[in-house]
Amino acid sequence: MGVMINGVYHADDPTPDSAADGEYRRAASNIRDRITVDGAEGYAPEPGRYHLYVAWNCPWAHRTLLARGILGLQDVISTSYAKPRRNEDGWIFDVDGPFADPELGVSAMHHVYARQTPPYTGRVTVPVLWDRQTQRIVSNESADIVRMLGQAFAPEAGLYPTDLANEIDRWNTRIYADVNNGVYRAGFARTQAAYDTAVITLFDALDVIEAQLSRTRYLTGDRFTEADLRLFPTLARFDVAYHTAFKCNRNRIADYTNLWAYARDIYQMPGVAGTVDFDIYRQGYFSPSPHRNPHGIVAIGPRFDWTASHGRG
Amino acid sequence: MGVMINGVYHADDPTPDSAADGEYRRAASNIRDRITVDGAEGYAPEPGRYHLYVAWNCPWAHRTLLARGILGLQDVISTSYAKPRRNEDGWIFDVDGPFADPELGVSAMHHVYARQTPPYTGRVTVPVLWDRQTQRIVSNESADIVRMLGQAFAPEAGLYPTDLANEIDRWNTRIYADVNNGVYRAGFARTQAAYDTAVITLFDALDVIEAQLSRTRYLTGDRFTEADLRLFPTLARFDVAYHTAFKCNRNRIADYTNLWAYARDIYQMPGVAGTVDFDIYRQGYFSPSPHRNPHGIVAIGPRFDWTASHGRG
Repeated sequence: MGVMINGVYHADDPTPDSAADGEYRRAASNIRDRITVDGAEGYAPEPGRYHLYVAWNCPWAHRTLLARGILGLQDVISTSYAKPRRNEDGWIFDVDGPFADPELGVSAMHHVYARQTPPYTGRVTVPVLWDRQTQRIVSNESADIVRMLGQAFAPEAGLYPTDLANEIDRWNTRIYADVNNGVYRAGFARTQAAYDTAVITLFDALDVIEAQLSRTRYLTGDRFTEADLRLFPTLARFDVAYHTAFKCNRNRIADYTNLWAYARDIYQMPGVAGTVDFDIYRQGYFSPSPHRNPHGIVAIGPRFDWTASHGRG
Repeated sequence: MGVMINGVYHADDPTPDSAADGEYRRAASNIRDRITVDGAEGYAPEPGRYHLYVAWNCPWAHRTLLARGILGLQDVISTSYAKPRRNEDGWIFDVDGPFADPELGVSAMHHVYARQTPPYTGRVTVPVLWDRQTQRIVSNESADIVRMLGQAFAPEAGLYPTDLANEIDRWNTRIYADVNNGVYRAGFARTQAAYDTAVITLFDALDVIEAQLSRTRYLTGDRFTEADLRLFPTLARFDVAYHTAFKCNRNRIADYTNLWAYARDIYQMPGVAGTVDFDIYRQGYFSPSPHRNPHGIVAIGPRFDWTASHGRG
């Protein structure tokens, strides 16, 4: 993956994504402006003003698609979907079709970042929340985008209610480290020790979540919150991608009674199924990689019925 | 993997194991003498005369361990177990411990092949059935070894009864091509097309076997035969190795009601459990490979209870 330095894209990223100990460490996103209800920071919640750059397979981008879908903002915020497989240009677009960019017509995400002033330095990632009015990136931090979409466009939806904020934060912290990013720590590990630590921590966390979901419909009780939204992208990718491509194969999500029913429960919420594409997940995660998949062969993968009754009403 | 040419081992095998179309094709074994009841071909079924060179993880060697175990020949035929991970010397042995060679004390299998007269040319594989009396390899073809152990040492056991011979042959042919070697065709494929063909054929065959096992306890009816013996090594390795390391992930064996109960049924037969080591399977199949596993990371793998009741009595 490339990197931008002072607004110029370099295909050869000098930043190692794996430390000397073989552990994978994710770099932080660094454009973090905010849409607020009153627009006090320059960005007001105006329909038709913002555009989301995403990729179906990117789980961080998926968070923002889930917020948009669950909050019913499909007609308020438009989208461009990058192709599932990156190349030396990073996340790329076709000229037309479902992987074209109807907003700026760029061929790669780095061209969006290149428009930023002052000139951008950092990773070229999705999601990107683009402001059509100022022609600027508002944010490339998925957690911030999820939070601001809820608070600015649909505060009544209550994805992050005040009375549950501490509990949501607690889940978010653990789920990010051990699950959302945990699968990458397992899959991107370059030593057995780094992999073992990551994969054991991952399944310990899934076991804890399974126990919680035996007691409550959602992570924090009977209300769907941001904590659930942020867990879902990993669950949707798990059995078709992480299980095999990232060697997270102690269990499948389908082996967990509660977690699997919970995943279907969320999948069946209005606005969610349209954010999921299992075949694209397989295409993306089984991309050619000298570290994980030298011949780029895409595994056949299991098929599960996500529309089956979940019994968690 | 190396190769012997006129009795000399070459670590750099000039024979490609993948054709231009990306398909894996297994080379034939080529030492095929026979032990017979009357010893007419030079090899009589004498206790203490023969020695088996095997590796726990090699499924072809496993066939011969199963024949030895099921026929109760543990005290009649001795064994040496190569280490699960090969190196430039191929299958290797420790100086002492469970992976030493108590028979000839060799450090690698190619030293056994080097003793053969006339000088051996071909792959250095396990299993090898060694004759202590003539100091020769009797056979390195697993199917032949299984057949001759049954017919020469325990004809009453009936692993290949005349009245079922045609049906056993039919199963053996399909199971070899689509299942035993089919997992390797999937895992060793270097093109998507070669993988797709192999993995679809594999699961088609498993579906056919599942249907058969819904009707009969064993493949050919109510008697355990050579056909069952030859299917078992692939089933034992499937969920912990082939499923992830070879991307055979449409299903697990544990997902098949009949096949999974049948696998446990065989596992619980006298002489079988002692031929199985799931941790060694993981070590072997997740060896470092530039084609499949560049960092050599061993997946955590699922754990199943092979001793659970199978209900197929």
